[in-house]
Amino acid sequence: MPVTIRDVARASGVHVSTVSRAFSAPHLVNPDTRSRVLAVAEGLGYRPNRAARALTTGRTHNFGIIVADIANPFFPPLIKAAQAHARSRDYNVFVADTDEDPQVEEEVIQTLSKQVDGVLLCSPRLTNKAIERLREEVPFVVVNRRIRGMPTVLMDVGQGASLAVRHLTELGHRRIALVSGPAGSWTSKAMHEAVATAGADAVFLGPNAPTEQGGITAAADVIASRVTGVLAYNDLVAIGLIEGLSERGVRVPEDVSVIGVDDIVAGRLNRPKLTTVSMPAAAAGRVAVDMLLQAVDDVAAATVTTLETSLVVRESTGRART
Amino acid sequence: MPVTIRDVARASGVHVSTVSRAFSAPHLVNPDTRSRVLAVAEGLGYRPNRAARALTTGRTHNFGIIVADIANPFFPPLIKAAQAHARSRDYNVFVADTDEDPQVEEEVIQTLSKQVDGVLLCSPRLTNKAIERLREEVPFVVVNRRIRGMPTVLMDVGQGASLAVRHLTELGHRRIALVSGPAGSWTSKAMHEAVATAGADAVFLGPNAPTEQGGITAAADVIASRVTGVLAYNDLVAIGLIEGLSERGVRVPEDVSVIGVDDIVAGRLNRPKLTTVSMPAAAAGRVAVDMLLQAVDDVAAATVTTLETSLVVRESTGRART
Repeated sequence: MPVTIRDVARASGVHVSTVSRAFSAPHLVNPDTRSRVLAVAEGLGYRPNRAARALTTGRTHNFGIIVADIANPFFPPLIKAAQAHARSRDYNVFVADTDEDPQVEEEVIQTLSKQVDGVLLCSPRLTNKAIERLREEVPFVVVNRRIRGMPTVLMDVGQGASLAVRHLTELGHRRIALVSGPAGSWTSKAMHEAVATAGADAVFLGPNAPTEQGGITAAADVIASRVTGVLAYNDLVAIGLIEGLSERGVRVPEDVSVIGVDDIVAGRLNRPKLTTVSMPAAAAGRVAVDMLLQAVDDVAAATVTTLETSLVVRESTGRART
Repeated sequence: MPVTIRDVARASGVHVSTVSRAFSAPHLVNPDTRSRVLAVAEGLGYRPNRAARALTTGRTHNFGIIVADIANPFFPPLIKAAQAHARSRDYNVFVADTDEDPQVEEEVIQTLSKQVDGVLLCSPRLTNKAIERLREEVPFVVVNRRIRGMPTVLMDVGQGASLAVRHLTELGHRRIALVSGPAGSWTSKAMHEAVATAGADAVFLGPNAPTEQGGITAAADVIASRVTGVLAYNDLVAIGLIEGLSERGVRVPEDVSVIGVDDIVAGRLNRPKLTTVSMPAAAAGRVAVDMLLQAVDDVAAATVTTLETSLVVRESTGRART
C-alpha cells in the first residue's frame, strides 16, 4: 500500500496541511518542523504527487525561463542560480530558447504559459507592447529590460558602461566606438546613452549579432571608424572583434583597446584577457525567482530591482597611442 | 465567439481529424493539405488548445532534454537543433540542467516525466541500473552513453580519440596522457580504450571536472607525468589546461601538444587555436528527436545510432621535441 500524506502527518505529529506545505511552500513552514517532516517522509518512502497536487491547487510547480540564446555563456550562470533557488522552493525550472527570434519568443510564451505557473523572461526581443499583451496569459518577471508596470530585474549596464568609458578616457582615448547588439535590445540602448554622454567622440556601429561572429564581422567597421577604444555589446562580441582585428593586423591593446560586457569564463582565458563589465547574472537569477514566487502568490507590486555592475580591468585595454 | 477546429475544417474542406493532425502530427498529413489548413487557421485566428488536446490524447506535446551542465558549450548546439526539429513536429522542448549531480538528475527525471511525453537524456551521470529503473516512468532516448536495450544516439568518440592519438604518434609523440572527465562518464571510458591501445606510453590522469577549471588544475599533473602529447576530455578542459601550462611556463604546442574534444566555438578563437575531435552535436540532437517521436508512438526498437566524428587539426598540436 502506498504511503500517503496522512501517514507522514501522523508519524511527524503535525497536521496534513503542514506536510503539504513542507513540500509545496517550504518558506511558510518552521525550518525545524520542515526538516522533521522531510526526514519522516524520506524514512517512509513518501513521494508527493506533483500532478495530483496540480489538480487540487491549480499549480504546476514549474517555472519557465525564456532566454534569447542558450548558446550565449551569459545565460547559464543565471539559469543555474535561478534553478537552484527555485528547487529550494519546490519549483522545477524548464528552459526554452528563442533563437533571438521575436516570433519564436511569442510562440514559446504562449505554449509555455499553459505548463508553468510563471515565466522569467530574459533579454526579450519582443516589443514592450507584445510583452504587455502576453502578460495576461501568465505571471512574468522580466530580466534585462525595463517595461513599465512589470516586475523587473535590471543589471545596471548603463552604470557599467559609464565605468568602462571613463576607464578608456582616463587611458587617453578620445575617439570611442560602441559596437552594439541586436536591434530592439534594451541593453544596447542603455550602453548607447553611456557612450554618448562620455565626453569623447562617439561612434555607433550596429546592429550586430550578439555572438563571436558578430564581433569578427564588425572588425572592418571598427578599423574604418579610426577609433582607439571600443566598448562591445558583450564578451562574445569583444572576443570575436579581437580575433577579427588580429586577422587584419590590428593589435589589442597596443593599437585598439576593447572592453566587453558580462564577464564570462571565456573572457578570462582569452589572449589578451578581457577587460569587461561584470554582470551579476547569478544574483539576478535568484532575485528574479523570488519576485516570481511573489507574482504567483499575487502579492507582487511592479517592483524594479536594479543590481550594480562593476568594471574588471584585465589585459585588453591600455594607453591610447599618441 | 472563439474559432473552433470545426470552423477551420469547414473552411479548408477537410475532416476535423485532418485539422487536428495538421497541428499535432504534421508528418502524417499531405504537405499541401497541411499548408492549406494552417493558412486557413491563421486567417480565421484559430489557435489549437494544447491543454485541451492533452486531455483528449493524453499527450502533452512537450519533450524534455536533460543535460549534465547547460554551461558546457557542447550542449547548446545539440539543444538548439533538437528544439528546432521538435518544433517542426509540433513539440516544445524544455531543458533541465542537473549540475553534474546524479541525485539531481534522478529527481529531475522523476518530476519531468509527469510533464512531458519523452525525455532526451544527454551524457547522464546516473548508473545504468538507475536509468533502467527510471525508464518505466517515461520514454527515453539516451545520448552519449551506451545502455543495453535503450534507444541510443552515440557520437563515436572512440573513433575520434583514435584519430587524435594517431595524429600525436605521427608527430613523434611517444608518451601521451589522457586527461579524463568525471567519474562515471561513458565518454571517458571510450577515450581510455583508444589511448590504451594506441601503441604509445599512456598515462591516465583523472577524474577531472569537465570544465576550464578542471583543465587548469590538471596542468601540474600533466607536467609531472613528463608527456609531450595530451588528449583532453573536452575542449573546455583543453583550453583550461593550455592556460594552466602557460602559467607554469610550458608552451603549447612547442613543449606539449594538446587535443580537445567537441569543437566548440571558443576552441576556434583560442590562442593557440585548438586541435580537436569534432562531435556532430546538432545531428545528434535531430536524430535523437526522431527516435523519441518513435518511442512516444511506441514503434521504437532499441536502436543504436552511431554518428561519425572527425579530427580538426589547428594550432595546438605540433612535432614532439626530440
